[in-house]
Amino acid sequence: MAKAAIMGYGTVGSGVYEILKKNAAKIGAAADEDIELKYILDIREFDNHPEKYLFTKDVNDIIKDDEVSVVAEVMGGLHPAYEFTKELLSAGKSVVTSNKELVATYGSELLEIAEKHNVNYMFEASVGGGIPIIRPLNRCLAANNIIRIAGILNGTTNYILYQMITNDKSFDEALKDAQANGYAERNPAADIEGHDACRKIAILSSLAWGKEVDYTNIGTEGIVNITLEDVRYAASVGSVIKLIGYAEQLENGKIYAHVAPMLIKRDCLLSDIDDVYNGIMVTGDSVGDVMFYGAGAGKLPTASAVVADMIDSVIHKARRSLIGWAKTDEDICAGVDGKKFRYFMRTSDTAENAGKVFGDIELVKSLAEGETAFITGELTASEAADKAKELSGMISSIRIFA
Amino acid sequence: MAKAAIMGYGTVGSGVYEILKKNAAKIGAAADEDIELKYILDIREFDNHPEKYLFTKDVNDIIKDDEVSVVAEVMGGLHPAYEFTKELLSAGKSVVTSNKELVATYGSELLEIAEKHNVNYMFEASVGGGIPIIRPLNRCLAANNIIRIAGILNGTTNYILYQMITNDKSFDEALKDAQANGYAERNPAADIEGHDACRKIAILSSLAWGKEVDYTNIGTEGIVNITLEDVRYAASVGSVIKLIGYAEQLENGKIYAHVAPMLIKRDCLLSDIDDVYNGIMVTGDSVGDVMFYGAGAGKLPTASAVVADMIDSVIHKARRSLIGWAKTDEDICAGVDGKKFRYFMRTSDTAENAGKVFGDIELVKSLAEGETAFITGELTASEAADKAKELSGMISSIRIFA
Repeated sequence: MAKAAIMGYGTVGSGVYEILKKNAAKIGAAADEDIELKYILDIREFDNHPEKYLFTKDVNDIIKDDEVSVVAEVMGGLHPAYEFTKELLSAGKSVVTSNKELVATYGSELLEIAEKHNVNYMFEASVGGGIPIIRPLNRCLAANNIIRIAGILNGTTNYILYQMITNDKSFDEALKDAQANGYAERNPAADIEGHDACRKIAILSSLAWGKEVDYTNIGTEGIVNITLEDVRYAASVGSVIKLIGYAEQLENGKIYAHVAPMLIKRDCLLSDIDDVYNGIMVTGDSVGDVMFYGAGAGKLPTASAVVADMIDSVIHKARRSLIGWAKTDEDICAGVDGKKFRYFMRTSDTAENAGKVFGDIELVKSLAEGETAFITGELTASEAADKAKELSGMISSIRIFA
Repeated sequence: MAKAAIMGYGTVGSGVYEILKKNAAKIGAAADEDIELKYILDIREFDNHPEKYLFTKDVNDIIKDDEVSVVAEVMGGLHPAYEFTKELLSAGKSVVTSNKELVATYGSELLEIAEKHNVNYMFEASVGGGIPIIRPLNRCLAANNIIRIAGILNGTTNYILYQMITNDKSFDEALKDAQANGYAERNPAADIEGHDACRKIAILSSLAWGKEVDYTNIGTEGIVNITLEDVRYAASVGSVIKLIGYAEQLENGKIYAHVAPMLIKRDCLLSDIDDVYNGIMVTGDSVGDVMFYGAGAGKLPTASAVVADMIDSVIHKARRSLIGWAKTDEDICAGVDGKKFRYFMRTSDTAENAGKVFGDIELVKSLAEGETAFITGELTASEAADKAKELSGMISSIRIFA
């Protein structure tokens, strides 16, 4: 019998509780021993909860209870999640989390503390909600050198783009729709500006290449500037626009990464990831492309990944699971100009001028009067931006996924 | 340092060799110790091989060598792979395999022997080639009760259907094309009659529900009767035809499973699995639908899954990995009539007669003179077959995936 605690009884926390109750038999069999919940930490009152005696407001109840061996940190935010996690790991308890912000910011340090105390720090739920991706990337693809990761990592923005693509809604309409459906927060900045996806691709990159990729080094663009016209142009060249978290190991060993809207050809499976779903394509030197697809958020999907980590922690209490990465002082990031892409561009300037500035361009049939649309050759982000300044009236500039 | 052996130096075996050499550093880091190849078993001569001293024709060299802790069985076929595997497990060596026939036929017994001798018997490569599916299903989704598995599990038939769908080729043309490209064997029966997919869905079902699902109890239809006309009809109702390995746990706890061509709506991601690729959709009670996609066959993809299992065996040499199922005398299969589906049917009989026999049908616009096409209500396989006999001139009868 393993004793567990949940920290934070919000959406994911109550989902973890529900799954631990509902699927107790299956979970016990998978972990080779039952997992019994002993505490739920939350500062709020839950007097009507059927197991209200589980609740505590004092994290020390958990830290000082030697019986508790695994804790689900699903409170979110950096503080006090960071301090609590450190104390719990130092007290010899495994911690599993859905907190991508914490993992992306303090992951290296927390992994180090976990190693020192011979316990696990696991975060399957921090990327892709319920989609198995952390463990498959780390273990199932362990025989591969990972070449590239390209993922639709944020359900909110995928829903907005999907509404624009499929139902011809404007960005503002689609955002309101997402908010009305509970897919977007009242303040949607973290999603639509790409910050959420940025933390997730940082976690995946660190894991894939074994060294901390600092998320603050990842060039991040959101979808706030994407218009219905851009979406229609994309369709006219057999593509859709998706917000892609992208990471690639270059030949010099450095990691290039970005978060940005990209044109995806219709024959790539990433273009078929609709609605609020996530899809993560991983390219290995042996396996080629594999993709993982599913609900990237939501109470039960995310909670099911948290509970899977709890099970794995219980199984691996004697021997730590080897999922993680090393902190490094080495500058492993290739910088925003580390990799060249082709760009789709729109300008109110002439095709002639576009050709003069960008050289060999491929014209795209214009969908509006007085507008030139074209595809460039391969350019770095700086080259694309600098050249674009030479044209009068740039409208859009979107990378093309290849 | 862990010592390993490869049994069978064919396509997959040489791929395992190649990956162990090429990615030795990554593999050693993942396994927490280096994996050194000590033997390759093959009855053929490999005098020009750069490491020809590794080759042996006598399996006893491996069985009796106490240094060898993990063996990759990639020889294929039931015998002598079965006997060799038994002896190796009994001698305390972990065995990993890509041999779906062996796993589907003797898996329960071999898992039992492995357990008895506290070693691992692993088979990630037996389903979906390099796609991580066995471990994710067993471990990452461990907090879920699995409701359903529906997979495109055979690349050869998917290629043939894709050629029919996309390039308007007849079945015979597409098959020849597949053979010319090396995607289909000279004798393609195991693929096109569904036997390969049958073994794979049996393995996935056994794993998902923890009890042996005997593949001989799984109703299996191939794609040999699918015509270009069927494919066009499917398109006319917004669908494609795919060969689906299907398994579902019914409310009474029994497992219904089949392999059969099915009409898949274009808005389901399974419809987008093109070419020789595999895609496996798993539905869990908490996570909802997740899908795993990638190359379902091929030298390096399959070998990369074999090597991942070798790594995991080395990690879990102290404590066995808990992936497997129990042999059961209980009849857990629901039988071919265990679940009802709607059917797409074509007949040279009249719409009136079709309505009389099948009751409430949905007519589909006929694409050929003197032909009636329609969709039935929900029927068992026997009901569908029995009623079809009452019509004169049945042309096609294909289940609809929902």
